[in-house]
Amino acid sequence: MTTAKSQKTDPGRFFEHFRIGEVIRHATPRTVTTGDVALYTALYGPRFAVQSSDEFARSIGYERSPVDDLLVFHIVFGKTVPDVSLNAVANLGYAEGRFLRPVFPGDTISTVSEVIGLKENSNRKTGVVYVRSTGYNQRDEAVLQYVRWVMVRKADENAAPQGELVPQLRKAVAAEELGAAVPPIRVDGWNDALSGSPYRWGDYEVGERIDHVDGMTVEEAEQQIATRLYQNTAKVHFDGYAARDTRFGKRLIYGGVVISLARALSFNGLGNAFHVAAINGGRHVAPLFSGDTVYAWSEVLDKAVLPGRTDVGALRLRLVATKNRPCADHPYRNGEEMDPSVILDFDYWVVLPR
Amino acid sequence: MTTAKSQKTDPGRFFEHFRIGEVIRHATPRTVTTGDVALYTALYGPRFAVQSSDEFARSIGYERSPVDDLLVFHIVFGKTVPDVSLNAVANLGYAEGRFLRPVFPGDTISTVSEVIGLKENSNRKTGVVYVRSTGYNQRDEAVLQYVRWVMVRKADENAAPQGELVPQLRKAVAAEELGAAVPPIRVDGWNDALSGSPYRWGDYEVGERIDHVDGMTVEEAEQQIATRLYQNTAKVHFDGYAARDTRFGKRLIYGGVVISLARALSFNGLGNAFHVAAINGGRHVAPLFSGDTVYAWSEVLDKAVLPGRTDVGALRLRLVATKNRPCADHPYRNGEEMDPSVILDFDYWVVLPR
Amino acid sequence: MTTAKSQKTDPGRFFEHFRIGEVIRHATPRTVTTGDVALYTALYGPRFAVQSSDEFARSIGYERSPVDDLLVFHIVFGKTVPDVSLNAVANLGYAEGRFLRPVFPGDTISTVSEVIGLKENSNRKTGVVYVRSTGYNQRDEAVLQYVRWVMVRKADENAAPQGELVPQLRKAVAAEELGAAVPPIRVDGWNDALSGSPYRWGDYEVGERIDHVDGMTVEEAEQQIATRLYQNTAKVHFDGYAARDTRFGKRLIYGGVVISLARALSFNGLGNAFHVAAINGGRHVAPLFSGDTVYAWSEVLDKAVLPGRTDVGALRLRLVATKNRPCADHPYRNGEEMDPSVILDFDYWVVLPR
Repeated sequence: MTTAKSQKTDPGRFFEHFRIGEVIRHATPRTVTTGDVALYTALYGPRFAVQSSDEFARSIGYERSPVDDLLVFHIVFGKTVPDVSLNAVANLGYAEGRFLRPVFPGDTISTVSEVIGLKENSNRKTGVVYVRSTGYNQRDEAVLQYVRWVMVRKADENAAPQGELVPQLRKAVAAEELGAAVPPIRVDGWNDALSGSPYRWGDYEVGERIDHVDGMTVEEAEQQIATRLYQNTAKVHFDGYAARDTRFGKRLIYGGVVISLARALSFNGLGNAFHVAAINGGRHVAPLFSGDTVYAWSEVLDKAVLPGRTDVGALRLRLVATKNRPCADHPYRNGEEMDPSVILDFDYWVVLPR
Repeated sequence: MTTAKSQKTDPGRFFEHFRIGEVIRHATPRTVTTGDVALYTALYGPRFAVQSSDEFARSIGYERSPVDDLLVFHIVFGKTVPDVSLNAVANLGYAEGRFLRPVFPGDTISTVSEVIGLKENSNRKTGVVYVRSTGYNQRDEAVLQYVRWVMVRKADENAAPQGELVPQLRKAVAAEELGAAVPPIRVDGWNDALSGSPYRWGDYEVGERIDHVDGMTVEEAEQQIATRLYQNTAKVHFDGYAARDTRFGKRLIYGGVVISLARALSFNGLGNAFHVAAINGGRHVAPLFSGDTVYAWSEVLDKAVLPGRTDVGALRLRLVATKNRPCADHPYRNGEEMDPSVILDFDYWVVLPR
Repeated sequence: MTTAKSQKTDPGRFFEHFRIGEVIRHATPRTVTTGDVALYTALYGPRFAVQSSDEFARSIGYERSPVDDLLVFHIVFGKTVPDVSLNAVANLGYAEGRFLRPVFPGDTISTVSEVIGLKENSNRKTGVVYVRSTGYNQRDEAVLQYVRWVMVRKADENAAPQGELVPQLRKAVAAEELGAAVPPIRVDGWNDALSGSPYRWGDYEVGERIDHVDGMTVEEAEQQIATRLYQNTAKVHFDGYAARDTRFGKRLIYGGVVISLARALSFNGLGNAFHVAAINGGRHVAPLFSGDTVYAWSEVLDKAVLPGRTDVGALRLRLVATKNRPCADHPYRNGEEMDPSVILDFDYWVVLPR
């Protein structure tokens, strides 16, 4: 009989534990259900018809409503947290995110990450870890792949990093890589009254700026419920007692909540942008806290036809979310600085019917 | 390339935009799932056996548990908000609400509204819009129809309204119109122990007043989660930043939350009233805010047999909800005035086994 | 026509109303769905692979993911509240809890309780009621059985109790009674990377103490949503207005929330402990309130092989939850007293693959 302290608790990896080329199979595969979909609707209020109605989805060529792309993203991402970012100081960015196959209720998602870059910081206390994470369904088909980089603490300042490499990442996913998750769409089955918008792909212009008007205040219970739904264990979102001693003094809203809220708000102005096809980049510019109100606006950065397809086209959008500041005048930069209200700067491709 | 402000954001209709006879097909059809049902249970705590147990429902003649009638109501209603009440000042009333067919998980609901009345207010800043809204399932069968009227702002004080007509609305749905959503019930399959009440239709008397005893405090996160579940976009429930400049200085609890909470509380005393058959009228007498506690009591206003049916009977009930005031003495009016604690005065028909 | 006050509201049983040997069939059978499972995940964040992934469950021998054992417990328990503990002063303990069959989404659960003990307190104002409650599925197969005892108020101090008997309850469920709810497990199908832990039954030692590290702050909306999901009507969790006049002045977090949070936190250190096989005892040592942060640690009290089985083994664990105090040093007793941070002392058996 022993009363020794167990070593079975996982403290998470520190910077010096990561090795370039290492492949991490993350725990807890997850069967996605209509229960998850209902919660996603209740937490953010998305109104895109394809994800909301099996009938609408069937009328344009899906077998049924696919799961919201960002719900898939949060679940794939959540699995990486215990292995990649439990000891993270900051989530720095996303790139090369592509949605590769639709996910339907009943599918089981698991995630594998490869360490593709490491860069120790000059203070030797932290370093940046780059991982390429891939979500798979139960048939081992990739459904989503993206790169993120994150600043991770070292356990031992004197430990040497296992390599140094800053990967070259593309500024944007190319048009020919978009649309893999979208079956052929029967555009004549698309009902603009039911979809909530008369504007198709051809109606948007590069440079167009869209204020999404509505604001959504975030409550602590909501962000905790959301973040647990994704089995994301990052303690900054949950441990209010420990948070008292942090620089903010309170829990942080999970950045994924901001992305999903801004995307849901974007329905007003982008109602036919039914699918997130790719994530080019994303940065959580400032933290969000319980009680803050999120607003959002979008700018059309680019337009693309999809090779070989006449059913749908893609828009590259900048989605900007602010806190406690409506977006009628599209706040973004003040000279070199970001506008202090901006919390999210998200660059992504959406797909619309032509 | 343009940087012009987009005109694609929908600002919602103002009073002068409505036309009598206009038919509005609302966006975002919605497949209702057991996920929605679980959330409905978690948000209000209803305990009616028919909606809670597929086995109980089958034992009396349903194919499975139907979706709670008020969940159907909130979903049908929610779809109308972006088109009808985004610029509303107040939701004034309901009438002639009838539940026409049961809704089961897997059904897809969409809503169509007809403008049946308009009346400009003497201040010329607002007007009352009357709409008859009908929810349909995926077979285009009507599942619910009701009238509501709402005070809507004008965009331009000088604009002329497109007609004036105050519709004649019946005080109550007639007994012969009740029960369309209830299949023939096998009363010998009804187990009073499992349903939670020994009192059948015949045990209630006109004039009987029932205190539902329990209180339920409402949290902001709960009402936001509920209201988004219905894809209701009314900003008074969500935008805490904008709410600071309103007369209340904070977000309002969605009135549908009050109706559902009061109905769930009414289980204690009305456990066999398994179905809401009709809504005769309803008024949100005073606003509810996060942190307030809801209590409720009921009065039996009328009793009716259903033509040609011996399985079930109907009770017409007044359901009164209060805030921060228990209902042992059935608070309602003080002379001409409503008791200041009253927040909801709801007149509806329920169905019970005979 | 009458305006008399109705007697149809159920005030709940008081101590003198219980009779030894009485069998109570509780109301509101409940079909458990994937919606309930999604909410359970969102409310507590459990990460056990068997309950999270249908694929993982099938790979080891289940037909699909079983419903989390504690979700079953809370649902079975919730049904007893209106009949057993509506007038309770305190929930005193649990014993002889055994999970007898797995529950899958689609199963319908109902509960029957037998009064097995009564003991009036010397103040004659309250008494302790002992009930053995059994949850059944739709095939009338027992899925869970447990004893709890609760202190209940008397309606009338002068009323005589209907008997006196303090049942003999075993300190722990015997090893040969464990595992009825676990099908034969194909241990070669168990993937430690996906389950999140390399530690099998054989790796744990009696006396080992495991700090589960993470903390989870509880919000009022979360505990209300959880408690209503179980259709538990205990008013101390819901009625903030009435709570102002209680000794705490506010709502109490439902004790089942604490058990489920501590169990979810225990994944870090006990990732392969996929099944709760039995509840030996449990005590809510101190109340928890909204805003408090829950931490947990476990001690291995015993190890057992299961007669005739080589696939799985059992660990008897003490699961201790604290509030606002991390558990690195395993707080429990200070001499005769419980450490003031401790809120839960839970003694249970879990099953792990060998």
